Amino acid sequence: MMSTSSNDSNSIEKLFTARSIAIVGASTNPEKLGYQILSNLLRGGYTGSVFPVNPRAEELLGKKVYASILDIPENIDLVVMVIPADFVPQGLREAVEKRCRSAIIISGGFREAGRADLESDLLDIVSSTGLRIVGPNCQGINFLANQQCTSWPLVKASGPLAVISQSGTVAATLAGWAVDEGFGISATVSLGNQIDVCESDLLEFFHKDESTKSIAMYLEGARDGRRFLRVAEAVSSQKPIALLKSGMTPGGQRAAASHTRSLAGSDRIFDAACRQFGIRRVYNLESLYDAAKGMGTLTGIKGNRIFIITSSGGSGIIAVDEAERNGIEVLPLPPDVVGMLKQTHISPNATFSNPLDLTVAPSSHYSEALDIISSEEIVDMYLVIFGDPIPGATEVVSQLVQKVGKCVAVAYLGGGEVEKEERTKMHHSGIPVFPTPERAIQGMKSALWMHEVQMRKLDT
Amino acid sequence: MMSTSSNDSNSIEKLFTARSIAIVGASTNPEKLGYQILSNLLRGGYTGSVFPVNPRAEELLGKKVYASILDIPENIDLVVMVIPADFVPQGLREAVEKRCRSAIIISGGFREAGRADLESDLLDIVSSTGLRIVGPNCQGINFLANQQCTSWPLVKASGPLAVISQSGTVAATLAGWAVDEGFGISATVSLGNQIDVCESDLLEFFHKDESTKSIAMYLEGARDGRRFLRVAEAVSSQKPIALLKSGMTPGGQRAAASHTRSLAGSDRIFDAACRQFGIRRVYNLESLYDAAKGMGTLTGIKGNRIFIITSSGGSGIIAVDEAERNGIEVLPLPPDVVGMLKQTHISPNATFSNPLDLTVAPSSHYSEALDIISSEEIVDMYLVIFGDPIPGATEVVSQLVQKVGKCVAVAYLGGGEVEKEERTKMHHSGIPVFPTPERAIQGMKSALWMHEVQMRKLDT
Repeated sequence: MMSTSSNDSNSIEKLFTARSIAIVGASTNPEKLGYQILSNLLRGGYTGSVFPVNPRAEELLGKKVYASILDIPENIDLVVMVIPADFVPQGLREAVEKRCRSAIIISGGFREAGRADLESDLLDIVSSTGLRIVGPNCQGINFLANQQCTSWPLVKASGPLAVISQSGTVAATLAGWAVDEGFGISATVSLGNQIDVCESDLLEFFHKDESTKSIAMYLEGARDGRRFLRVAEAVSSQKPIALLKSGMTPGGQRAAASHTRSLAGSDRIFDAACRQFGIRRVYNLESLYDAAKGMGTLTGIKGNRIFIITSSGGSGIIAVDEAERNGIEVLPLPPDVVGMLKQTHISPNATFSNPLDLTVAPSSHYSEALDIISSEEIVDMYLVIFGDPIPGATEVVSQLVQKVGKCVAVAYLGGGEVEKEERTKMHHSGIPVFPTPERAIQGMKSALWMHEVQMRKLDT
Repeated sequence: MMSTSSNDSNSIEKLFTARSIAIVGASTNPEKLGYQILSNLLRGGYTGSVFPVNPRAEELLGKKVYASILDIPENIDLVVMVIPADFVPQGLREAVEKRCRSAIIISGGFREAGRADLESDLLDIVSSTGLRIVGPNCQGINFLANQQCTSWPLVKASGPLAVISQSGTVAATLAGWAVDEGFGISATVSLGNQIDVCESDLLEFFHKDESTKSIAMYLEGARDGRRFLRVAEAVSSQKPIALLKSGMTPGGQRAAASHTRSLAGSDRIFDAACRQFGIRRVYNLESLYDAAKGMGTLTGIKGNRIFIITSSGGSGIIAVDEAERNGIEVLPLPPDVVGMLKQTHISPNATFSNPLDLTVAPSSHYSEALDIISSEEIVDMYLVIFGDPIPGATEVVSQLVQKVGKCVAVAYLGGGEVEKEERTKMHHSGIPVFPTPERAIQGMKSALWMHEVQMRKLDT
């Protein structure tokens, strides 16, 4: 049953929008992944049909267990494999027999463990049946629009960020941060050995996916570098892509070759290519998160002049340092604007400048100042720093965004419980909040970079 | 009553070890700092006497309120001022009349607000009475060994890190991180305008303070640069100092001049001086925390060869990249060691190399591997990466530390709730846990740097 040309039959959509899922290797032992994945799928609120498969169990978490895939009485859109590698090819053949067209292979023990033979078997199945496979040796897929956690850990906080990662842990880490601060994710995909579905296929999927606003990628090497760059260029003109590529040093390249057999290639050439094709390259995990978050939310930054307002003098200075080091201009305020600011309720102890240091201040002082500045059209972006537990921060910033658009980032620090509450509220309103002034500036710089890339594309 | 020579009368100790504290400007309004500081002092478990002062109240949080400092029936070791600037000099004179020798002035509205005259009054009081003053325009002192939170927010998690900061928010931010991850602090001091007690006085105090193992400093400019370097050199030979100095860029320097009237001086010269005098200079807030944490805990790192063990292949590669970029050597494992590792319960799918990628693994696999490696004395430091929710991590690492000493850092990521629990447990055992491999490497690099500085000092 060869199928290659039709878009429908070759689509990877069913990996994300499956209405029925079989979990082969579903386990009764809560410490096993075969248990955890089943449990996450059910607890995540998945509304399709779920079929655990395990010849040595009858019921699992309230679901009837089937001895074999072939015993399942309904169609299967997606099969998840959590069984020893040697048994995976046979399981896939049975899934294909059931007309299943999508598989996630969690199991390791293939090429990365010296079993190229087993991986060949999988490739034969892919080429002879058109079955689409994510993995093997991966951490699965989490797609919140379908409430489908065929992965771990369970993530239920829905947001705008999709993570595509050659490391399951990296995906889980970014998702964990997004959950902890109420930002949320649209999806995580762990690539594993990429025998079939690769980073480019996934970029194309998330390009169309409405729940995704930006994409964070962790790669050790692209499977097909040219295709990756071509696809990324098309995607990034509408949805920003941030990329952390590891294996940059000689030792890192050796380790990457062991992990997913990725060939690293020349780092310098890759770097130049990223710039050219509109991929925002970053150099550590936190920057990957910040860049994707900043670019996905700060879509209204169109110039490099910043206004910084703060209740913390020190944080303001730190922000200026980071801004100037990164080519963002912190221009002084015109004298007439300073005059207007001095007519407000803002403390006379404030520093009426840019940064505007309100000193200890209620949120209303922020509003008064931002009303004046935003009416003057003298800056391109705003960094609002809350350096104390200041309730009402969300209202201040939301009003500013309504007036000036999506060019407002927040740094909230030193604010204890109030900070945590306000951060979640702002994230729910689509306003990015960063833990330090430096990370806020980096997030804004990424957004400005993406704007410049998109302008350049319009020009050519 | 002039007093200059005696160490006792001029000591700043009572700022930290006060047995009786007056809070002038204690307020009935929970939104005011005068309320919050009183409340924090009481809720923090302070066991000395507390005297709220406010002419318009009779009782506050169960404490009798005094109309004036002079009405307080007992001696006062420390007075905290939270009243408008104009009234501060008179309040201080009354405190001196009560033989009080230490003051924290929270109030702003002095030099930084154009009231150099008021600040002169304070200086006159200092020089004529020997009263020791922290501030004005500051966020106070938090000293956990005395359960004394004359500051905000309230921090009750006791740990080895002291923070000295020209920004109250920076101090509160580092303290907040230390609380959230169970690392804890020994103290925070917010310097404010530093009319009397300055960064060097505080370094000398923390040098002797047994609860402090390392010091994080945020400065916009040293009050007396030469003394600062001389004192820092003496302190850092026993207690590591990490420093974030802002006001590095032209805009940052202008902002620093407004904030605390600090003159920034030449950044390049300052940088060279830091190296020479053993101060670990860092360039952003998170690095400040990581460097102080790493140097205070990783006191056994005496060479640059690292062993990296992980359950997450990607995290291992990221760690290697960061290590090699920072001059830390990731040497291959000798063949006989690889042979021994293959005789354990570690999965045959593991990558038996450095980094040792266990793949998905229980904590016992870490123990087996680390037992073998640590017996070989082939490395100087260990980075243990947990890239999944792995219970029992603390026991693994504690055993390793017992064997090899304080040269073990942990990166724990992608581990959800288990991660949070294990992180707190490890911090209580004095083992530093970092949120990413890159930050762990940076913490270790700082510790190695400090070791090299201390060796150099022994040589000369």
